[in-house]
Amino acid sequence: MRKVAVIGVGQTRFSGAQGKSLSELFAEAAFEALADAHIESKSVQALFVGNALGDFAEGQGMTPAFIADYIGAWNVPANRYDGACASASVAIRDAFLLVAAGVYDIVIAGGVERAASLGTPLATRTFAMFSDSRYEFPAGMTFPGVFALLAHRYAAVYGLPIEKLKEQMAQVSVQSYNHGMFNPKAHLKKSVTIPDVLKSFTVATPIQLHDCCPFSDGAAAVVVASEEAAKTLSPRPVFIAGAGQASSGPLASQGAYLPRLKARELSARQAYAMAGITPADIDVCELHDCFSIAGIIAAEGLGFFEQGKAGEAWLKGEADIGGKVAINPSGGLKSKGHPIGATGAAQVYEVVRQLRGEVEPERQVPEARIGMTDTLGGDGGTMVSLIFKRGW
Amino acid sequence: MRKVAVIGVGQTRFSGAQGKSLSELFAEAAFEALADAHIESKSVQALFVGNALGDFAEGQGMTPAFIADYIGAWNVPANRYDGACASASVAIRDAFLLVAAGVYDIVIAGGVERAASLGTPLATRTFAMFSDSRYEFPAGMTFPGVFALLAHRYAAVYGLPIEKLKEQMAQVSVQSYNHGMFNPKAHLKKSVTIPDVLKSFTVATPIQLHDCCPFSDGAAAVVVASEEAAKTLSPRPVFIAGAGQASSGPLASQGAYLPRLKARELSARQAYAMAGITPADIDVCELHDCFSIAGIIAAEGLGFFEQGKAGEAWLKGEADIGGKVAINPSGGLKSKGHPIGATGAAQVYEVVRQLRGEVEPERQVPEARIGMTDTLGGDGGTMVSLIFKRGW
Repeated sequence: MRKVAVIGVGQTRFSGAQGKSLSELFAEAAFEALADAHIESKSVQALFVGNALGDFAEGQGMTPAFIADYIGAWNVPANRYDGACASASVAIRDAFLLVAAGVYDIVIAGGVERAASLGTPLATRTFAMFSDSRYEFPAGMTFPGVFALLAHRYAAVYGLPIEKLKEQMAQVSVQSYNHGMFNPKAHLKKSVTIPDVLKSFTVATPIQLHDCCPFSDGAAAVVVASEEAAKTLSPRPVFIAGAGQASSGPLASQGAYLPRLKARELSARQAYAMAGITPADIDVCELHDCFSIAGIIAAEGLGFFEQGKAGEAWLKGEADIGGKVAINPSGGLKSKGHPIGATGAAQVYEVVRQLRGEVEPERQVPEARIGMTDTLGGDGGTMVSLIFKRGW
Repeated sequence: MRKVAVIGVGQTRFSGAQGKSLSELFAEAAFEALADAHIESKSVQALFVGNALGDFAEGQGMTPAFIADYIGAWNVPANRYDGACASASVAIRDAFLLVAAGVYDIVIAGGVERAASLGTPLATRTFAMFSDSRYEFPAGMTFPGVFALLAHRYAAVYGLPIEKLKEQMAQVSVQSYNHGMFNPKAHLKKSVTIPDVLKSFTVATPIQLHDCCPFSDGAAAVVVASEEAAKTLSPRPVFIAGAGQASSGPLASQGAYLPRLKARELSARQAYAMAGITPADIDVCELHDCFSIAGIIAAEGLGFFEQGKAGEAWLKGEADIGGKVAINPSGGLKSKGHPIGATGAAQVYEVVRQLRGEVEPERQVPEARIGMTDTLGGDGGTMVSLIFKRGW
């Protein structure tokens, strides 16, 4: 297998409902990524797009076939992946594997979603399709409910008073908002305090409004290239050093293992093994904080902190820039926004730019050399881990 | 790249609306394929499933994550592909490439759909999402309309009186029905004559009811394995000798090239080149006859007959068993049925069983050594070609 690099990244601003089509949104991100990679559309040999809800948002399925034509990557194989919120990460992993294998030299991979355009009731209803449609949604289990249950379970398993956990969760959001303030592409830009979070309205006990990410519109894309192609095109290639992916069924299938998610831990283990590193080597990580409790569970599942201790780490600044590992300097799903199918690619966009040292100074992780992304689809049904290393 | 074989195939009966869930349907096909391959679920290293409309049929997205759990392929990477009617073929090609690359040794790939369960008005509406949602559907272009226009264009380009073309189209359906009669897994089993087709009701001039495939429920799955794994498991591996995939945008983007579809021709060319063969080497081909005119266009695009001459070939029996190439001995989409996301896998199911010489005698292609599948997604947006060769 060949070495594979990311040589270009692009992202639209994440936002509420806006008027661009899926093709237009993805094109905006793709052209930025192509320009960043100093290549033209005709150099692209395949297009892999994560998109979970395009059919519902604008009555368009099989979107990548139209996007390929739209961006001038004529007639290339164009795949659509639905791994729910992890769709783009599945697309990028596939691109990585097929470039590594020598099938393609240059692939654009990413994702696009108009989750905000769906409107709130339909967005909530359609998101719930990514949990088990037979047993979870009919029982009232939309995602705030799923993560509220996980928060209660977390508190019970680790013997944490719920008020203490709520304070930790609040700090996860506070930190994300702090960084998102300085991300020009973030959806929600505001400064909030722990009391602000705690007094925001209750979505599903113990989850408050500020514990939840927004529904966003947006797209992100990355140019994935063989080492050989990267050498001639990019002075600063960021190599994909490791990748993992694992699945699981309904949340209940994980039984007593909860609040831990086995699929994440398996996926991360694959990625660490491939990269030949340990969690302690990660300088910066964009992880899946669709709810603040999800961020805490992710940080533990990836091995950054002991089980039951991540919330404390957040409160101590150990999960922030300058701490043990800089988590979500982009603002995370919480502040940057969560356009489902695009989220994994936006995480890669951020990590690559962090490793290149080119984000806004207020949120740049100093000397970041190794980065990671963690993306969760549904209530853990699809988990993808990617590890990146500077190539210079 | 390693050699890759199909070592097991499974298919549910294709049917009208039925009561099984997507997971249950796919499991039925998958367990048949696993038994055929003499392996258990725990040997599977990844699961790739084509599914276009599960969200609409039963409110379930990201279905493969749940299917993997359901069939006991716990925690494997589980991808959902939407390439419209070509979804399963995209999944199988991806499985082929990743096994060839050495990423996996054994993958289950296939597709599932409950297109009949959607009910006719919703099925027609949702299918139309796979043409261009901005310009085609709003203009009234559901798929019967698309292929009716292509039929008129075909007649005009090749100077064929429309009544002559209608007779040729009718023969495509007559032949498919003739074979489907003997396929125990076919959806529609009846014997029709050319006059029956011509006097069936008009769906969209010049397309009559019997020129159209049905909406079906069903699933199909294949076990894809490395040559090494195949050697120990199967006395009769069928090798995937070639694969191609290409995309295109809205039908109108193809302009004066129509009724030919450039993406198909590019895709087929890739597959022939990889397999090192020409169209004349193909003994049996399952091609995408969603409408009879689509079958005619496909047979020419794949290079079996001269442009404008395929309909005549059908009338002369050259497209039938004993002719130049045996087309759709399964009954094709017309008689076997068309459960969108499953169709490409059902084509592979048929070709593999033809090469093994194990289908019903009435429709077995004698001495079939090389087979091909051709799958069309949307109105040509996604095209996949696969070529298979006996391994013994």
